[in-house]
Amino acid sequence: MSECIFCAIAAGTIPCTKVYENNHVLAFMDIGPISDGHTLVIPKPHYERLHECPPELLAETAKAIGLLADPVKRAVGADGYNVLCNTGAAAGQVVGHVHFHIIPRKSGDGVFNRWPAYKYPEGKAQQIAEKIKQNLKL
Amino acid sequence: MSECIFCAIAAGTIPCTKVYENNHVLAFMDIGPISDGHTLVIPKPHYERLHECPPELLAETAKAIGLLADPVKRAVGADGYNVLCNTGAAAGQVVGHVHFHIIPRKSGDGVFNRWPAYKYPEGKAQQIAEKIKQNLKL
Repeated sequence: MSECIFCAIAAGTIPCTKVYENNHVLAFMDIGPISDGHTLVIPKPHYERLHECPPELLAETAKAIGLLADPVKRAVGADGYNVLCNTGAAAGQVVGHVHFHIIPRKSGDGVFNRWPAYKYPEGKAQQIAEKIKQNLKL
Repeated sequence: MSECIFCAIAAGTIPCTKVYENNHVLAFMDIGPISDGHTLVIPKPHYERLHECPPELLAETAKAIGLLADPVKRAVGADGYNVLCNTGAAAGQVVGHVHFHIIPRKSGDGVFNRWPAYKYPEGKAQQIAEKIKQNLKL
């Protein structure tokens, strides 16, 4: 996967500012942070989409996120953090190798402040839930 | 944890529109969606913050997210999805029981369109990385 920048980072052929590594996962500083301390956690093997990752690899990635999140938050004196995985260009995925953002947050920082919640019309949530359950069986 | 609405949902004493359940994890429709199909995935045991969850519980939660993400996306004909866990009020956490959002996204929907990336001054990323690594050792 010589075209994939995150594969090259995982292979060590492109440098990064590493914060953690084990056999399955690499964590490094995002070079275009949206808050100080913004860290990326990637599975080392190349998968483009979260749902394409083998379950055990997702499990290892989640364990690394759990290990890193509070140290990242404390390193910059933040009050909280977002863990975010954008999947697909429509969702803001820019690099086509699964990655989770750990984004430290301070009260009132305005980094993400949009949450356009609404209510479903009667019965719609149930209709969608049925479709999800059908898809799960396929 | 009778005060926790997600514990009550997990216990079945408050109803939800369920899409998936196993011994460790429950997934149900968010009643205040920010896009059609917006689904919540929670570990059943009560932990307030992601980094407080035992690693194996995070692993089970991640596996469920991996299982659900594409069925959720397809149920609403979306092009992608965000997986998001807000931790702490500063990061937008409203219910104090760990939960991951699966947010289906369509191209140009504008649900999240803010990504205020910047560059670190020379040496700053390395300084923060050192603090994170020190915190990991504590």
